[in-house]
Amino acid sequence: MEEQMRRDAEAILSASIQAVLPDQAVDRALQEFHPGPGRLLLVAVGKAAWRMAHAALAQLGRVDDGVVITKYGHLEAELPGLRCYEAGHPVPDAQSFRATRQALELVKNLSPQDTVLFLLSGGGSALFEEPLIPPEELQQITRQLLGCGADIVEINTIRKRLSGVKGGRFARACAPARVFSVVLSDIIGDPLDMIASGPAAVDHSTSAQALAIAEKYHLALSEQARALLKQETPKELPNVETRITGSVRELCAAAQAQCRALGYTPVLLTDCLCCEARASGSMLASVLRTHQGDGTSLAYIAGGETVVHLTGDGKGGRNQELALAAAPGIAGIKGAAVFSVGSDGTDGPTDAAGGYVDGDSLAALTEAGCQVEEVLSRNDAYPALQKVGGLILTGPTGTNVNDLSVALLRR
Amino acid sequence: MEEQMRRDAEAILSASIQAVLPDQAVDRALQEFHPGPGRLLLVAVGKAAWRMAHAALAQLGRVDDGVVITKYGHLEAELPGLRCYEAGHPVPDAQSFRATRQALELVKNLSPQDTVLFLLSGGGSALFEEPLIPPEELQQITRQLLGCGADIVEINTIRKRLSGVKGGRFARACAPARVFSVVLSDIIGDPLDMIASGPAAVDHSTSAQALAIAEKYHLALSEQARALLKQETPKELPNVETRITGSVRELCAAAQAQCRALGYTPVLLTDCLCCEARASGSMLASVLRTHQGDGTSLAYIAGGETVVHLTGDGKGGRNQELALAAAPGIAGIKGAAVFSVGSDGTDGPTDAAGGYVDGDSLAALTEAGCQVEEVLSRNDAYPALQKVGGLILTGPTGTNVNDLSVALLRR
Repeated sequence: MEEQMRRDAEAILSASIQAVLPDQAVDRALQEFHPGPGRLLLVAVGKAAWRMAHAALAQLGRVDDGVVITKYGHLEAELPGLRCYEAGHPVPDAQSFRATRQALELVKNLSPQDTVLFLLSGGGSALFEEPLIPPEELQQITRQLLGCGADIVEINTIRKRLSGVKGGRFARACAPARVFSVVLSDIIGDPLDMIASGPAAVDHSTSAQALAIAEKYHLALSEQARALLKQETPKELPNVETRITGSVRELCAAAQAQCRALGYTPVLLTDCLCCEARASGSMLASVLRTHQGDGTSLAYIAGGETVVHLTGDGKGGRNQELALAAAPGIAGIKGAAVFSVGSDGTDGPTDAAGGYVDGDSLAALTEAGCQVEEVLSRNDAYPALQKVGGLILTGPTGTNVNDLSVALLRR
Repeated sequence: MEEQMRRDAEAILSASIQAVLPDQAVDRALQEFHPGPGRLLLVAVGKAAWRMAHAALAQLGRVDDGVVITKYGHLEAELPGLRCYEAGHPVPDAQSFRATRQALELVKNLSPQDTVLFLLSGGGSALFEEPLIPPEELQQITRQLLGCGADIVEINTIRKRLSGVKGGRFARACAPARVFSVVLSDIIGDPLDMIASGPAAVDHSTSAQALAIAEKYHLALSEQARALLKQETPKELPNVETRITGSVRELCAAAQAQCRALGYTPVLLTDCLCCEARASGSMLASVLRTHQGDGTSLAYIAGGETVVHLTGDGKGGRNQELALAAAPGIAGIKGAAVFSVGSDGTDGPTDAAGGYVDGDSLAALTEAGCQVEEVLSRNDAYPALQKVGGLILTGPTGTNVNDLSVALLRR
């Protein structure tokens, strides 16, 4: 294990995750926030709602009123001037509906001078819901859709029309007040209408599509539900301004900055990686092998979320597989390292955030009796990396913006 | 299909392959060739031996004497002053041994003023052989090694010691004459001791390793063979100067130059790609997707040889799979294209050299009833690409230096 390389990896990793913690992400987004002269209201929804609201209050000083809705166990303390609720996730419950009603009451009858600061993070789909049909029927329709194999886009197309807040309807309810929407993105490509079903985002699906889906799957629907599918969701929201923050893009940007600070020339490969984990590790290793003689310190950065095909029942995760798969390709190269981590501090069903390998790792693995190909075929990267000091352990980080993979070459 | 992108792809492809044809590759290598004042002899061995010798003669004007050994059917015409032989490949035959003997006779009793120009290409292992044991025994030992699952490195370690020309022994036989060795590389990473078993390359394997392999597999060996395993191969060859040419590295360099000429900023990712074909295609698409807003024309270049895991019995090849797998990731992006080709003009058991996709391809595939995931699961890329004009057909190119994959973004 090369000490210097491991230290560089830890520094890059920690600076990158730091930059996408909800607090810093909200701080950055609010640099461009200039509330109107009227009332300032805050609505925070999602798994990171409390942290986002806390960060916003710290920066703004105060707001006139507000509602915070997060998952059970995620409220850390009362927040001055805000009503805080915990609710059901991933399945919405009565508490979700009650808290959402409070938020809708809050934004009723506002004027164009008023401003709603809307803080959105993952998990909002369940936590923020105003069913326009009886909750039991909504649940029953969702169950039908899941049962017949409808995909997530189809399910959302139907559900947005049965909701009083999804698909841009919450922002519509705030009008004519201005809505400044700060979105902590956890989906690659930042599809605003997908994150928490887009309460403040224009919906791109149409009534015609919704009706076609109902027909395709022969959904059993009440008259009321069928009538709702015929109602269009907002196709423009002139009162909304949106800032996406804390996304995998910012994770990669922070990694680039830290690499530069450490003397590497950063090369951003992609922020929407989605291929197989082990192939991605092999490819990063090939990149380092090719450039080993270049004479400059290089850092290749890839953000996103790779996939693993399970062929065994070992212990590991996609980031650990990516790192392990890079070991043969960089074997013997001095000053080379590949590491990959989940930004939430969790990789697969393990306590590790990811994996790290350098030019010495393959020899150490062989010494420990581990054959990379064989280990990967059993999806058993964790114990192999553990034996060679290649696990990265961070604990929960408090954010979740996909994964970061970095290939380093120090010269 | 975007016309301009396809034209760019064809231009890059044709310039790159042109640069690694044996003629051009030999021309480049001979720029630095300055024969001594004595006799100039030429020995050319391998599948491209005739073309390499022809190119060398064209540049040098004449040589004093020489031997050319190539595969049956590969001699195109007589070459003035050279004795040309055709011999067995991939299994050596009596003609291989006879021609090799001629070459050994040729380089006997040379002086330090003499120069041997040695032109080597793939296939030389079988075509160039002087067995130090009866050929039948050599064949029988090879069969034992293959039967017990020995890998190629183990097999070569044994065979080099049973040969009068492999493992640096041909260059040793030329001494004290100078040897200028021009190697047309067809193996990633250009391992000189692997290409045609390295007749003019220092051998890194040892007698001790050879004996250990014999023990490991309980090889049945004659006394003579066992004695040969104990003899060391050359560990230094001060009379040899080597130029590797026409390798995947030069293929990538030529692609970079042509991309630059077309207005792209080329980015060499790797020249030793070896991961799964479809993941590589997905990753290249992710790279383009991330950089689509950069405002500059970019060309990401990867050379090497990807792998395909067969899960179906369709028609295709690794380059076609790589291209097809990139289609979803670049769908809808204007001025984006990914293509991949085998430099020999053949991809898998098909008449195509590779595949091409652009931002319109996914829609065209869907229109044609092809689902990328499903097609790949059947390894059936050929007919799918054929339906959307995505096959690249070049015919045999006359060279073989691995594959070239390029991801283009025109702005």
